[in-house]
Parts: sequence; structure tokens; C-alpha cells
Amino acid sequence: MTKDENSRDHIQSLERGFQVLLAFDAERPNPSLAELAAATGLSRPAVRRILITLQSLGYVKGEGGHWSLTPRVLSIGQHYSASHAMIELSQPHLLRLAEQTSESASLAALDGTDVVYIGRVPVRRIMSINIAIGSRVPAYATSMGRVLLAWAPPKHVDEVIDAGLRPLTKNTVTDPEEFRRELRTVRAQGYSIVAGELEEGLLSVSAPVRDQSGTVIAALASSTSSGRATVDELRAEIAPLVVRTADAISADYGHRASGKAISTVHREHEGFF
Amino acid sequence: MTKDENSRDHIQSLERGFQVLLAFDAERPNPSLAELAAATGLSRPAVRRILITLQSLGYVKGEGGHWSLTPRVLSIGQHYSASHAMIELSQPHLLRLAEQTSESASLAALDGTDVVYIGRVPVRRIMSINIAIGSRVPAYATSMGRVLLAWAPPKHVDEVIDAGLRPLTKNTVTDPEEFRRELRTVRAQGYSIVAGELEEGLLSVSAPVRDQSGTVIAALASSTSSGRATVDELRAEIAPLVVRTADAISADYGHRASGKAISTVHREHEGFF
Repeated sequence: MTKDENSRDHIQSLERGFQVLLAFDAERPNPSLAELAAATGLSRPAVRRILITLQSLGYVKGEGGHWSLTPRVLSIGQHYSASHAMIELSQPHLLRLAEQTSESASLAALDGTDVVYIGRVPVRRIMSINIAIGSRVPAYATSMGRVLLAWAPPKHVDEVIDAGLRPLTKNTVTDPEEFRRELRTVRAQGYSIVAGELEEGLLSVSAPVRDQSGTVIAALASSTSSGRATVDELRAEIAPLVVRTADAISADYGHRASGKAISTVHREHEGFF
Repeated sequence: MTKDENSRDHIQSLERGFQVLLAFDAERPNPSLAELAAATGLSRPAVRRILITLQSLGYVKGEGGHWSLTPRVLSIGQHYSASHAMIELSQPHLLRLAEQTSESASLAALDGTDVVYIGRVPVRRIMSINIAIGSRVPAYATSMGRVLLAWAPPKHVDEVIDAGLRPLTKNTVTDPEEFRRELRTVRAQGYSIVAGELEEGLLSVSAPVRDQSGTVIAALASSTSSGRATVDELRAEIAPLVVRTADAISADYGHRASGKAISTVHREHEGFF
């Protein structure tokens, strides 16, 4: 009897298939079977069967003893984007924000203790290029994460704090009480500015995107570097633009804005993610 | 004994997991278990186990009897992009091309008989928005597909022709001999222009991106509509820009250009996809 049959509801081979798929990355773009076994902790025969299955499904290909992902894996994410109308309708807004600011514009959703980029218009500056759709950063140290947590159920905030607020730079807020105060400020002012907490010199401002019910389902951000703008400039010039753009996306998505009051409404609903 | 155990190398539950994941789409963003069973042809108990597993892995979430994908599914595609350096280094080139042309710029790879978008800078025009990374279009009716097939192994071209050249508009090339002539022209001139064969009024011009060995691994395209440009304008103004940009991506990726000669080299190697 296999483990699959022992566990009535959890299909272990499915879990292992994803483990193998996710073992391909920038450090390991063309792994061998042995490297995949080492990376996943699975046996070589198990990895071999998974690779043969993934190859027959068109998600990986093998050549000369090395394996690589095929573009077919992108289809899975495409189904996520296509099934969330908000992502598609946010595109023109992201583009306009990127044009107006000459800086990268991003859209992110919460996934556990991380934020995941679900939309992105990069701007041709070296710093801005290397973050792509689907990449993840710790929620607690980013303006998008602060926005998403500011309107998240309190137990979600507890989870993030329990997972640990590690210092990523000397500026990272790591004290739970200071972090909770920060979230209250974000909720009161309707946006978040984070300077150099994820990475030295990285500045970003973020505002909430809402669905019809008023639930915050995504965060919109504009990012720059300390060499190009100060926090005061961000607050005076970019924050109002980001809030206005986030409100426009929410309106397109069916949310009826009711002015400043919105930023103080705390809803317990989870978003769609 | 389960089917998993009968088939020595193919893990059926893994295949079914992907079937369920891909059953979420624009038409069915929040399916019920019954809808997923109908869409995949799997039994309800099988779909239920898969959903429970996918939920425990964080890829789907259930609420009120309906299921949806989470942003975590984007991580899988992110691993594809991160493991292909060419995709990252092409980004600034795509942006510059989009700026220079004020039209969408795209990068695609071949996957079977389709091309899959692996990079994209959309331009704020209604027509251009709805194609995102990971989406697929038939290779035979697009300029990117023609470029990829022009330098593909002959058996790949045969497969595409055998799969059928269906008329998608009144302009679609459907005659195998005419199609092969078209590919020879693309190889001779070093780029492809396709006008209204995938969709009425959609014009695009595409050129090959090569790796160090000279193998064509992707196609770069600029797309517009017949209301904004003619085929002659595309040929005179946009084609040279697209070829130059594709050459610049190839050069960044380690390909040593050797002038016009390149466009007539026919290599049998498969690309990385």
C-alpha cells in the first residue's frame, strides 16, 4: 500500500510534483535528476517518475541528462490572471501610473506572510527590472504588505508577527507593537510609505484596491530609490497619485468610493486570494 | 491496486492535479466541485481529494462551496522566468521597443503547435491589453510563430501542418505549400510580418532571438492594428527596429551577430523550450 492510499485526502504525489517543479530556479535552471533529488529530499526513483510524468504533460524537458522547465508552466499562472478580472482591468491604470511617475508600478496580493506580485509595469531602470509577476517578498517589510495587513483580519496580522519580524535592514520595523501602530497609521491615512526596510535605498508608496463589498483585495504601489526621491516628496507628490489610481481600479472593479471615510472602514472579510 | 501503481512511470494523480488547476479560467473563475468535475471529466471524489491537496499546498482556496486559485500559482511561472536568464535581460529591450513604437512589445517561445507569451510590455490601447504572460495562440497564424517555425527543425513544421492550418480569418494561410514558402521567405528576410491572419485588423512584425550557439530560442514582436499602420509602413519602419532589438537581446544573451548571414543559417537544434 502506498502512502497515497494511507492518506485519505492528501495526495502526496501531487505535493511532490510541485516540489520538483519549484526546485527549478535561477540557481538551478538545468538540474540533473540527482540535483533535483538533493534539492527536494525525494528519492531518485520518485523524482524520475515525476519528471517522466511532467515531461509527458509538457511542463519539463530533458536533454543530455539535464532538465528544464518549458513555457507551458506559464499557462498555470495565466489561468490565475484570467480568472481574476481585477488583474486585467488594472493594467491600463498601472501603465498610466508608471508613465506619470516614470517609476515602476506594481500590484500585489497577500499569500500567507508574503506579498506576491500579480501585476507589474517595470520601468527601464536597473533596480526595477528584477521583480516579476509571481515573485514574493515578506509582507511586513513592504508598503504593499502593510496596506494588505492594515485591512486584513487581526488573526492574519498575528500570524505575520508570530512568524517573526526579522531585521532585513537597519530600518526594518521589528517591534510587534510598533508594527501594529504602523498598521493603524496606514489605515487612518489610507496609504503606506516604507523606506529602506526591505532593502537599503528602496522607497515605495502603496494604497488599497477594493472589490464591490469594500474588501481590500490587492495593493497598488509605486517604487523608487532614495537617490531619486525623499520620503517627503513621496508623501506630497506620489502618494495622492497612487491613492487616486488605486481608487480608479476599485471603481472599475465595481467599488463605489465614498471619499475619505473608506480608509477607516475595517472589514473582516478575506479578499479573493 | 490503483491506476497510479499500474502505470509504472506516469503518475496519474499529478496529471489530474494539473487538469483541475487548469479548469479555473475566465469563464469559470469560482467553480464548485461539481463544475470542476464536469469540466475535467473526473469523478467528484477524485476532484475533492485534489482540491483538498491543492488547498493544503496553498494553490486554491474554498469559500461557500466555491473554489478559486490563489496568487501562489504564479510562483510556478516565476520559477520558469527566473530559470531563463534571457527573459530577464530582454525586459529593458521590450520596454524600449514599446516606447519607440508606442505599441505593445512581446516575446514568445514555441510550445508544441502554439506560441506562449514569455514577456510582454502592453501599451495602453484597448486591443493590446488582454494578452498576458503565459497565454497561448496558434503558431501558424502569428508572426512570432512563423519566426519560431522558420528556424525550427523540419519535423516541428510538419507537426504544425499535420495539426491543421485552420482559417481563423479570411486571410489565414491554410495551404501547406504556401505556408512552407512563407517560412522560407521569413528565413531569407530575417523577420515575419503577419496581417490579419489570427484576427482581422491585427498586424504584427517579429524577429528571432538567438542563444550563444545561434539557435533561435524566442521571437520578439511589435503589434499594431490596421487602423494605425499599413503593412508597407510596418516593413519600412517597424521591421528594422524589431530586428535590431531582437539582435540586441541575442547579443546580451551571448550571441555574436555576424550580419545578414545569420538570417539564412538554418540550425537543427531545438531551443531551450
